[in-house]
Amino acid sequence: MPSVFPEDSVGLVTPRTLRFSEPLTLACGRSLADYDLVYETYGELNAARSNAVLICHALSGHHHAAGYHHEDDRKPGWWDSCIGPGKPIDTRKFFVVALNNLGGCNGSTGPTSPNPATGRPYGADFPVVTVEDWVHSQARLADQLGIERWAAVVGGSLGGMQALQWTISYPQRVRHCVAIASAPKLSAQNIAFNEVARQAILSDPDFHDGHFQEHGTLPKRGLMLARMVGHITYLSDDAMGEKFGRGLKNDKLAYDFHSVEFQVESYLRYQGEEFSGRFDGNTYLLMTKALDYFDPAEAHGGDLAKTLAVAEADFCVMSFTTDWRFSPARSREIVDALTVARKNVCYLEIDAPQGHDAFLIPIPRYLQGFGAYMNRILV
Amino acid sequence: MPSVFPEDSVGLVTPRTLRFSEPLTLACGRSLADYDLVYETYGELNAARSNAVLICHALSGHHHAAGYHHEDDRKPGWWDSCIGPGKPIDTRKFFVVALNNLGGCNGSTGPTSPNPATGRPYGADFPVVTVEDWVHSQARLADQLGIERWAAVVGGSLGGMQALQWTISYPQRVRHCVAIASAPKLSAQNIAFNEVARQAILSDPDFHDGHFQEHGTLPKRGLMLARMVGHITYLSDDAMGEKFGRGLKNDKLAYDFHSVEFQVESYLRYQGEEFSGRFDGNTYLLMTKALDYFDPAEAHGGDLAKTLAVAEADFCVMSFTTDWRFSPARSREIVDALTVARKNVCYLEIDAPQGHDAFLIPIPRYLQGFGAYMNRILV
Repeated sequence: MPSVFPEDSVGLVTPRTLRFSEPLTLACGRSLADYDLVYETYGELNAARSNAVLICHALSGHHHAAGYHHEDDRKPGWWDSCIGPGKPIDTRKFFVVALNNLGGCNGSTGPTSPNPATGRPYGADFPVVTVEDWVHSQARLADQLGIERWAAVVGGSLGGMQALQWTISYPQRVRHCVAIASAPKLSAQNIAFNEVARQAILSDPDFHDGHFQEHGTLPKRGLMLARMVGHITYLSDDAMGEKFGRGLKNDKLAYDFHSVEFQVESYLRYQGEEFSGRFDGNTYLLMTKALDYFDPAEAHGGDLAKTLAVAEADFCVMSFTTDWRFSPARSREIVDALTVARKNVCYLEIDAPQGHDAFLIPIPRYLQGFGAYMNRILV
Repeated sequence: MPSVFPEDSVGLVTPRTLRFSEPLTLACGRSLADYDLVYETYGELNAARSNAVLICHALSGHHHAAGYHHEDDRKPGWWDSCIGPGKPIDTRKFFVVALNNLGGCNGSTGPTSPNPATGRPYGADFPVVTVEDWVHSQARLADQLGIERWAAVVGGSLGGMQALQWTISYPQRVRHCVAIASAPKLSAQNIAFNEVARQAILSDPDFHDGHFQEHGTLPKRGLMLARMVGHITYLSDDAMGEKFGRGLKNDKLAYDFHSVEFQVESYLRYQGEEFSGRFDGNTYLLMTKALDYFDPAEAHGGDLAKTLAVAEADFCVMSFTTDWRFSPARSREIVDALTVARKNVCYLEIDAPQGHDAFLIPIPRYLQGFGAYMNRILV
């Protein structure tokens, strides 16, 4: 029977869950007594256990990075364009691990999970987790999977921050770090956009101080606004112009406050509404906080080169010309620090009109460069 | 008794109100039977009535552009840096008129005014007004004040759009048009930011479909979010970085969702809260709609040069290098069209780190260029 999936797909995949019972102390000072991590794997771990690649997800990502859960799935995993046989992260060569981060809302322990202290969902009582905390929890996942050293840790955006942090927290456990469309820390403007998103959720009367599950509500209005703001920053002005311009939704203007006049409004509302029904409000807050707090250089007085001095990995840094959320200049800060720290670093600045979202899009030049780097990795 | 005001201030000013009883038909097809416009004047109209300058305000502006209402006012009018004796719009030479636009919330007829049809506040029933509507209402104000022809119509941002529209709607009534930090129409990204602001207000349960006055509420949460988003787009990434960077509010991180961790969060929340207590939600919606709809070239198939062919004014167009809301490229679109249309146009692109807000800030190079242009105007 021929497969219903494309030839370069990893095909049908099944998430697995691992329980961790050793307490995890977090940067905030609190600790989690035990927790679950849900993950997927693609490809086969080789006998030398030298071909494992960890995928770290961004703000709204999860463990389902490639392939399909059901034969009738309309869409594959979120990074299917980059993971699969013959793709940049080639599953004929690599054993790929993708997880849902701690604090997420897709199966790993997070705000929607029961709080053992109360028996009710954690809600806003779930501790704030940081990029460092995630990396520690991911290291335990690696232990359980028998992976002493990753061939590569790979991520885009917030995922790229985790990849960087791996080389600092566990230098001996990462051979290659691939950080795409990322930044060494947020700018004031980045934090400002996150703060708008947070205030939208926090001020939604249906948020109920983060205990909306117990109230049988969802902070949908807040999440919708947060996602709309986010979406604007994921796309470039040019991309939006090309996609929507000033195109009208209907032939005639309605001249009122409620009607959708322009196509771009329709697109944003749809994106916001769809997201608000499937994502957890507390997880959104937590993810934006993890972004805000990330600043590995802070431990060395702001000197990123000093911070990265411990790294033993080789680095591949990629950015996209029209990305204004994490612009090429932010990637070059990483490259400059790595150069000063005398690390092997390869930098690719890809000419692409799609803005920050470009890292999720199969742009030929991007796939080619990404694939060339991954191809050079010995396993 | 020495004045308590600075020497280059217009000093104490008193707003006046004019009632217009001739019905005004609006672009939306509806009409206003009568309406008030509140305005201020600075300087003296000369005998030839040739020295009058109209100031058009932007999204949250009003008629109080310069001077003080009371001796103990902490702050002067919103454009005091540019209007006064010896300032770019020199009140020793010019008679300056500044008004609150129709639909505003500072004294002119708008959503908070009583609807003659019901006796209750208009609220969301106030008709949507456009830049063209404003220009027509301003022309009637000019009639009442005995001003046949403006020496100049001047405005920044949305105010610049009104200045441009004047040269199209009433070409014989404008000798000079000064459009600062403006654009010939919004981009998809501009509209998208406006849509987020609108959804924040519309989805606030205290908005009550725009009839919050009758419910004794204010959509403060929505207005706060709208203002926070707006503020991010008024400042440049650099300006925010220089002003706040990643500076913390307190010595230690709190690691929770509610605390203000970074100074930029504190600034944004303050700006949002302050604004939400003083601005009308329906006026905010209306102003963003006027911005979205403005597209004078549309009547000529998108050809701005053809649209501006009727203009008899000379033009001064100014932009600021770090303005990403209405970037210099948007101003150059206007300049290019004017050049094609063979109009006299002077273009100044000012190197300034402050972003869109720069047009409100006394930047020496800006005041100098602005003043030099205004100085050349014969009265």
